[in-house]
Amino acid sequence: MKNRIITISREYGSGGHEIAQRVAQQLDLDFYDKELITLAAEESGIDAQLLETMEEQLAAAPLPDPENPSSPYTLEDRMFLAQSRVIQNLANREPCVIVGRAANHVLANRDDCLHFFVYAELDERIKRISGRLNVSPEEAEKKIQRTDKARAAYYKHYTGKEWGLAHNYTVSLDSGYLGIEGVVGAIRHRFQPEWKANKVGICG
Amino acid sequence: MKNRIITISREYGSGGHEIAQRVAQQLDLDFYDKELITLAAEESGIDAQLLETMEEQLAAAPLPDPENPSSPYTLEDRMFLAQSRVIQNLANREPCVIVGRAANHVLANRDDCLHFFVYAELDERIKRISGRLNVSPEEAEKKIQRTDKARAAYYKHYTGKEWGLAHNYTVSLDSGYLGIEGVVGAIRHRFQPEWKANKVGICG
Repeated sequence: MKNRIITISREYGSGGHEIAQRVAQQLDLDFYDKELITLAAEESGIDAQLLETMEEQLAAAPLPDPENPSSPYTLEDRMFLAQSRVIQNLANREPCVIVGRAANHVLANRDDCLHFFVYAELDERIKRISGRLNVSPEEAEKKIQRTDKARAAYYKHYTGKEWGLAHNYTVSLDSGYLGIEGVVGAIRHRFQPEWKANKVGICG
Repeated sequence: MKNRIITISREYGSGGHEIAQRVAQQLDLDFYDKELITLAAEESGIDAQLLETMEEQLAAAPLPDPENPSSPYTLEDRMFLAQSRVIQNLANREPCVIVGRAANHVLANRDDCLHFFVYAELDERIKRISGRLNVSPEEAEKKIQRTDKARAAYYKHYTGKEWGLAHNYTVSLDSGYLGIEGVVGAIRHRFQPEWKANKVGICG
């Protein structure tokens, strides 16, 4: 099966969003990130602004268990289900790059997807975030910890798995060590037709 | 700083040992795996056969905390310390490939090392182990679970970190998806002089 879809999960401040954008641009693929929320919202009728706000708050307020019949589906659960439908529809429609939203889990049963996890040491991420948001290193660190906590809680709640375990991805890459372009190159190179069928060396 | 050392951590049955051997052979580097135990044993005066047996039993019997003064160093603790010294000496001496023994943690403060984690889906590993040991898939699965449990417990006890978290490695690779040669190629390609300084693309 040819590779069609790239999913990228990333620690906050690892440059994963920029990496995904560059990969999509260089491979001429559609790119979905915040757009995904909007599409999900359109499908489920939930306001996009509200969905974003809620996602930030996930770590602070653990969600009820959607598997438990006594616990009705919450707005968050419906949001996740709507996003999952959107991700599946996008994957069926055309090759693309999808960032975040536990897309690796949503598409885990397909064999035409490559799943990447991008991360970096904390000091590298503090540098990037304090520069991007023009805040102190202390503020950047707090923001990183808050955001990663929210992402880990979201991932755990909806997939039952730990966020950041190598096993959940095809390849995991340290952007602090390899550099943004290094990670872009690694992902690009792996996205090639007949990759899985031939099992050739990554770099010849 | 040039890359000098490659460490490879691996799930049991992922082909990590074979991958490490091929990488060492193709890059003409020394290779340390069981030899490391022997070297550590020579240094600490502990019998090598005994050390191997003990490592298998680690998951069943959690070790006392070496940080706690009321808990004297056990034989296992002395083994770990001796192995760590050996790993550090090897890394100082010459470029090499080191498999297992939490070498990524022992050498975490050096900037001339590349740390890889190799893993695969359970069914791929069952296939490999039942073929290699000529046992039923059920027996292979039990052996895999027992060995991985021991490795995770060992890693957690001596590093304080979860085994298999992407963050502990430079790159993590799924050998079931990428194939043995694919992983060998990825590791080989990344082991190049001036890699870190230039932060060039991995595959051009």
